Amino acid sequence: MPDNAINDCDIIVYGASSVHTLDSGAARATVPERLLRPSVQGNEAAALGGGKVLALGTESELRARYRPRQTLDAGGGIVAPAFLDAHTHPAFAGDRADEFEWRSEGRSYLEIAARGGGILSSVRALRQASEEQLTEAVAGHFRRMQAHGTAACEAKSGYGLSTAGELKSLRAIAAAAARTGMQVFPTFLGAHALPEEHEGHPDRYLDLLCAETLPAVREAGLARAADVYIEGHAFDLRRARLYLERARELGFALRVHAEQFENLGGARLAAELGAECADHLEALDPAGIEALAASRKTFAGLLPCAPHFLRQATDAPARQLIQAGVPYFVATDFNPGTSYTPSIPEAIHFARIRLRLSALEALAGATSNAAASLGVADRKGRIAPGYDADLVVLDLPSIEHLGYAFGENPVKHLIAMGKILF
Amino acid sequence: MPDNAINDCDIIVYGASSVHTLDSGAARATVPERLLRPSVQGNEAAALGGGKVLALGTESELRARYRPRQTLDAGGGIVAPAFLDAHTHPAFAGDRADEFEWRSEGRSYLEIAARGGGILSSVRALRQASEEQLTEAVAGHFRRMQAHGTAACEAKSGYGLSTAGELKSLRAIAAAAARTGMQVFPTFLGAHALPEEHEGHPDRYLDLLCAETLPAVREAGLARAADVYIEGHAFDLRRARLYLERARELGFALRVHAEQFENLGGARLAAELGAECADHLEALDPAGIEALAASRKTFAGLLPCAPHFLRQATDAPARQLIQAGVPYFVATDFNPGTSYTPSIPEAIHFARIRLRLSALEALAGATSNAAASLGVADRKGRIAPGYDADLVVLDLPSIEHLGYAFGENPVKHLIAMGKILF
Repeated sequence: MPDNAINDCDIIVYGASSVHTLDSGAARATVPERLLRPSVQGNEAAALGGGKVLALGTESELRARYRPRQTLDAGGGIVAPAFLDAHTHPAFAGDRADEFEWRSEGRSYLEIAARGGGILSSVRALRQASEEQLTEAVAGHFRRMQAHGTAACEAKSGYGLSTAGELKSLRAIAAAAARTGMQVFPTFLGAHALPEEHEGHPDRYLDLLCAETLPAVREAGLARAADVYIEGHAFDLRRARLYLERARELGFALRVHAEQFENLGGARLAAELGAECADHLEALDPAGIEALAASRKTFAGLLPCAPHFLRQATDAPARQLIQAGVPYFVATDFNPGTSYTPSIPEAIHFARIRLRLSALEALAGATSNAAASLGVADRKGRIAPGYDADLVVLDLPSIEHLGYAFGENPVKHLIAMGKILF
Repeated sequence: MPDNAINDCDIIVYGASSVHTLDSGAARATVPERLLRPSVQGNEAAALGGGKVLALGTESELRARYRPRQTLDAGGGIVAPAFLDAHTHPAFAGDRADEFEWRSEGRSYLEIAARGGGILSSVRALRQASEEQLTEAVAGHFRRMQAHGTAACEAKSGYGLSTAGELKSLRAIAAAAARTGMQVFPTFLGAHALPEEHEGHPDRYLDLLCAETLPAVREAGLARAADVYIEGHAFDLRRARLYLERARELGFALRVHAEQFENLGGARLAAELGAECADHLEALDPAGIEALAASRKTFAGLLPCAPHFLRQATDAPARQLIQAGVPYFVATDFNPGTSYTPSIPEAIHFARIRLRLSALEALAGATSNAAASLGVADRKGRIAPGYDADLVVLDLPSIEHLGYAFGENPVKHLIAMGKILF
């Protein structure tokens, strides 16, 4: 075929004021790019085909090479990789608006628990929901995330807390993904809390997880990673280690909730065991920062919406983590109890306000870095030839505006795997 | 005309899961309702005509009485009074995204000022903008507010800081209101900061305001209220008193920025002078709460987005103010430097999280109470026969969800003065 042949392609996106590719060179598997400057010169358009990015360039360059079946006018907006939300809890039924109201009426956590609130209320609701009801609830959550530019997400179970409930959650995540086009990276979070029937018997529940639930999830092929909530009132360090070692032995990637309220050494454990990430980190100490930096593998999962929602005074030491060379991502922590937002642009706003990230640092955190934390740096989170065609068009005058306004959705268009969702 | 005659009307809104009228009895001019329970029984529909609410009832009741020219299906959503944002600064040109980026890069206020940032950068941009450029900028801000359910707003000048610049700002507000259908309550805020040309000479600028600018604004009929920013680095208490007394003498209603960073006694001064409101109040002391309570007139303007944006640890003592019987409103404080959100639902979220307001307390704060603070409790902020037909349809399962999710716009439809904007 001669060089000047015109090929068919699926879509040409044109008319962008700039294309932020997040592509600063060769993709590395786990460590994100330090150099976050986008390459935008001469990139006002992208050609997409077969669900992949084919080429970047000016509109006339691309039209000289491709005959598109469809075009999308970016209308002077910014084109960026679609968001990859690397920490979400979408597998819940119902919501906790009643509990939120009790909190704003000044009721204490004990009163709320006495009224049936808290995480165990989500567990009761999930167990009562049919699989179809749960699937439709998860699909609803995925649609809200897509409306805010998220093409792919890590999606945790964790409100079942029984083998049946967790398998139902993971099947609902898979079915909702198929129903909505959300691309999911499913994570098993059976070790989220102690279910009521095992109250006072944490080792009994741990044994169940290790002997029955983890193998059943692995057997069913429903999750790529296993996660544990390391906290005084959830799983202590000793139990977390037993759980994570068992999960690793079974072939799961590891993700960890660590140091949200107390510094128990969860991040150090995550680094030691080669986990993909240690998330939250509001109570992380300098030794924890060092351990993450030394691992050269374990990402810091920054979830700045949660301390806002919980009125926590302390945030994750994001600037120190970045300074120490720790790879990081920025995610919503979408869940009904402690971070009820499906919006990555909102998480980016909180990252800029509370964690002092620049617009590009925050954007990388929700795209290229998020992809690297999930082991897909070679195909997601950037706009480059051969990468998955996941793109957003943002209605912003310049990239510095990302996360400047809040409560406002800047996402005008979302393309996921080469399909224009809106 | 017999009782059972069928009259024409403009619109029937039907299919709401509930109508939150905020109408708990007779409207009072200044003190908001303590009893915030909405009357929803049997109200699933509203008939509108001549820009006013005609009647509430079930759909069949209303269709038996009215023949509508147009109908709007609320689709199972919640109908509430459209939002009235009682504290906004929309009269700016350009934005301060560059400064926001410098802040998130960790640069200090001094460095930002040295680079030309801060409020005076907005002053320079405003003075350079033509009146048409400024009008289109303000119209853009109004459209963003409308997209989030705001039918009416208090709109301050304050980035001109010269007689010409302030008059241009107030004319731009009026012209932008006409262009967009936003209903405005214009406020003159010449006493917002000390302009560069009067640096080191605060009394000279105060003299100019009192002798020239205030009378010129009054003469032009461009503002109903005058506002002053009482703060150590802006206008001290002595100068604020001189300015407010002069404004009152000229017939302006008074609104005040008080106790945002320091407790200077601005709220007490506002109460003493019979101001409509004292806004911010993050540093308010118990004596200030008492003074506001004793005034039985001066509202507390709660602006919880600003301390978030500024990373302030302290919030206004909202629960103590409400407990003491102080009337209050909730507003965005929309401005480019310290609260860049056009969204009342977002302000309601922050009021619930940071100020511990219930959903209905926050909703009243942005509707009926806001109207009362502006002296229009008899025609705005409620859904009742004879009131202006300003309504929103919210895509929420119940009113407790208002302000639960964040970063997500729940406003599905906005009707302003009987016109469906979307």
